[in-house]
Amino acid sequence: MPLPPQLIDRLQGIVGREGLLLDGDVHARTTQGMRPEPLRAGVLVRPKTTADVSAVLKLCHQARVAVVPQGGLTGLVHGTDAEEGDVILSLERMNAVENISASQRVAVVQAGVSLQRLQEAAEDAGLFFPVDLGARGTATVGGAVATNAGGNRVIRWGTMRDSVLGLEAVLADGAVLSSMNQVLKNNTGYDLKQLFIGAEGTLGVVTRIAVRLREAPVGRAMGLAALDSFEHVIALLKHMDRGLNGTLSAFEVLWDDFYELVTTAPALSRPPLPHGHSHYVLLECLGGDPTRDQERFESALGEAMEAGLVADASIAQTERDCAALWAMRDDVQQMGRFGHPFAYDVSLPLANTEAYTHALRAGLHAAFGEHRCWFYGHLGDGNLHVVVQVPHPDAAAHAVVDALVYEPLAAQGGAISAEHGIGLDKKAWLHVSRNPVELTVMRRLKQALDPLGILNPGKLLPD
Amino acid sequence: MPLPPQLIDRLQGIVGREGLLLDGDVHARTTQGMRPEPLRAGVLVRPKTTADVSAVLKLCHQARVAVVPQGGLTGLVHGTDAEEGDVILSLERMNAVENISASQRVAVVQAGVSLQRLQEAAEDAGLFFPVDLGARGTATVGGAVATNAGGNRVIRWGTMRDSVLGLEAVLADGAVLSSMNQVLKNNTGYDLKQLFIGAEGTLGVVTRIAVRLREAPVGRAMGLAALDSFEHVIALLKHMDRGLNGTLSAFEVLWDDFYELVTTAPALSRPPLPHGHSHYVLLECLGGDPTRDQERFESALGEAMEAGLVADASIAQTERDCAALWAMRDDVQQMGRFGHPFAYDVSLPLANTEAYTHALRAGLHAAFGEHRCWFYGHLGDGNLHVVVQVPHPDAAAHAVVDALVYEPLAAQGGAISAEHGIGLDKKAWLHVSRNPVELTVMRRLKQALDPLGILNPGKLLPD
Repeated sequence: MPLPPQLIDRLQGIVGREGLLLDGDVHARTTQGMRPEPLRAGVLVRPKTTADVSAVLKLCHQARVAVVPQGGLTGLVHGTDAEEGDVILSLERMNAVENISASQRVAVVQAGVSLQRLQEAAEDAGLFFPVDLGARGTATVGGAVATNAGGNRVIRWGTMRDSVLGLEAVLADGAVLSSMNQVLKNNTGYDLKQLFIGAEGTLGVVTRIAVRLREAPVGRAMGLAALDSFEHVIALLKHMDRGLNGTLSAFEVLWDDFYELVTTAPALSRPPLPHGHSHYVLLECLGGDPTRDQERFESALGEAMEAGLVADASIAQTERDCAALWAMRDDVQQMGRFGHPFAYDVSLPLANTEAYTHALRAGLHAAFGEHRCWFYGHLGDGNLHVVVQVPHPDAAAHAVVDALVYEPLAAQGGAISAEHGIGLDKKAWLHVSRNPVELTVMRRLKQALDPLGILNPGKLLPD
Repeated sequence: MPLPPQLIDRLQGIVGREGLLLDGDVHARTTQGMRPEPLRAGVLVRPKTTADVSAVLKLCHQARVAVVPQGGLTGLVHGTDAEEGDVILSLERMNAVENISASQRVAVVQAGVSLQRLQEAAEDAGLFFPVDLGARGTATVGGAVATNAGGNRVIRWGTMRDSVLGLEAVLADGAVLSSMNQVLKNNTGYDLKQLFIGAEGTLGVVTRIAVRLREAPVGRAMGLAALDSFEHVIALLKHMDRGLNGTLSAFEVLWDDFYELVTTAPALSRPPLPHGHSHYVLLECLGGDPTRDQERFESALGEAMEAGLVADASIAQTERDCAALWAMRDDVQQMGRFGHPFAYDVSLPLANTEAYTHALRAGLHAAFGEHRCWFYGHLGDGNLHVVVQVPHPDAAAHAVVDALVYEPLAAQGGAISAEHGIGLDKKAWLHVSRNPVELTVMRRLKQALDPLGILNPGKLLPD
């Protein structure tokens, strides 16, 4: 159903002509960075202030029109798709870094600021914002809050949830919930910000955020280790986490297939360690005392070799070596060379991970015969990325692979999404990770905060 | 209004004779460890299983009888007081450590397990549970979840919220919400556990908890530093946090009055550093490499002395020295020697802390003339403990001191409770830290989860 012209006029009255996109200007945008389909919506509004967001929501609430909040569109689960009759509310013009307090170690930003700009603003103040991911230049702080973004350094500093001190959210009816706490400890009633972190824009539109900044690490130690069993991976995690106690900042595991793919032409990286081991672990340590940190890192890795956990290792000597290791790990586009791949992002207990990967390979073989399947991920956080490529990657094949990936997680308390979220893509599978009472309570929260269901409808909660 | 005898019979049918206390057995207990008033309630039930908790709540919900959950009764804000017509639900017999997974580094416990037992169980598995506070032997894990307990090592490992992976809560109507996630990253819909952490038993009764365990630190470095200004305190925090990057585990500040009190007879501690400086900072570093950690600690502290931030310092040479520093810091009962003291637990930005303490002293002087006022606390977390002793510590004086302590926090985004919670004691002041929209949303959550208001009524939310 198209939007009534009067509503569009009234929206323009709020955000101004330059704050409103229609028709071709909307379709010229794409839904997501990774999947370039033209954007659909009745109108796209680009408010500049919280007051404008509030006015837009109040109007849409009265008119019972759906509102889809959008950040940097770097999500991977179709969490910000809209329909022709919807209003897209883009936070792109709310992009001010409002304040950085060096003594309090807090930054206050509008939701449309990119992660990279926040990182740079922190750096300019001699501080550090730890949440980091490949899409940092485009992904917004608001989007990272709405999806509880993770990334490469969760093992040390946690997900976005662990960096948010306070936030401001506009509720479905336009009420502005300002909960801009800036102190580290605050036990004054319900911690309302938690409601909006990871809620994918279904409970409110996050407009401003106060984040915790950290002291900037000085120097880093990095290395790549080759291991010959997944049991050794688990033991190495424990060993390095104990030895680097507090400074281990990345523990990324690359299964052999993935390692070979990203270190063989046409991929640009060359193998720092020979092929032929079962797992490769990228290790990073960020500390405050470069010389002792490097010694400590080498000594912990040396102990792991002596103990037989690590078969071979390569230690980065320069910052360029470090960057090369990360480039190798992040060269995920290699998996797109063989046709459209299906990508997954799951969590499960480490002790069950190897059996899970074996069963999945067997299931894929039984269902498809020839296929490719790569495993890698933030194993320090129990977060496994799975990418599957089958001969005819159509919707039917996708459904089969979904079932093979998701169904076994139910029995082991796994999560169908470790960090990407649910959006439209995974809501039909949410029951694997959440039981009926949990789903009922989620619906009760949705009902309490958005009784008309106008905020990002159809996302996250199963139909 | 007394409880109907049939209800008591039916409760006994659920929990058995030994699971139920009446009359004198109830009054023989006290409301809180720190304030030994006899406990009041219609009945105290002690279920052994989640199913029993569910049956108790279902019954009380049907009868519209108030239920007050109780843990170890070590709270400080009258958060578990009950009335004659209430049912107290004590979790004391739900005290099983159900499971510890060394590879997943997770412990699953019933709510009535003490913090100390959890710490010991973790230690037996070669692991570490970091949340620690003086009442560890009595305080329960469930109570620590319900109050989002903090303690001495928040600067490194966060509050209880940061250690809870999953929990099970029984809702007001008896429905069992099992949300026992055990993976580190789980973005599958709303993070329901957050609702119950810090909600002081007003939204559900926490019955089981999955907590994250950490690798056990190996050895520790500790010291006491004397400083001559609060500006130096702020700078020292920054310096040590940067230098010990990731391993700084305590940064406790003792103002001069407090330091003199706890290091002068009849207190048992003797001053490790001379009196006469304005602030003393207890520093602790827990790491994985004792030799390098000690070097790193001494080197960072040495730099701070060279930079003029630290006037004098004493470094612990043995574990006994470490214990003595903590005993000095924790000797808070010295403040009770001069009459009944009023104790506070606030958060505010570090940059405003000195002005706040000066204004409070001036206000107390204007209101009471002679008085005592001690400042100390987890300043690494911005958490200031304030203890005030005035000549006639009656209710009227208490109200005056409350106003002097709390009112200035509103203008600076401070919290009237950093870690103790709200309970009955602080609910009249909640408006200082929370605005009307926040209070409205809190009430909406309460309404959504406990529409009849039977769970811990009168606590946390203002009347």
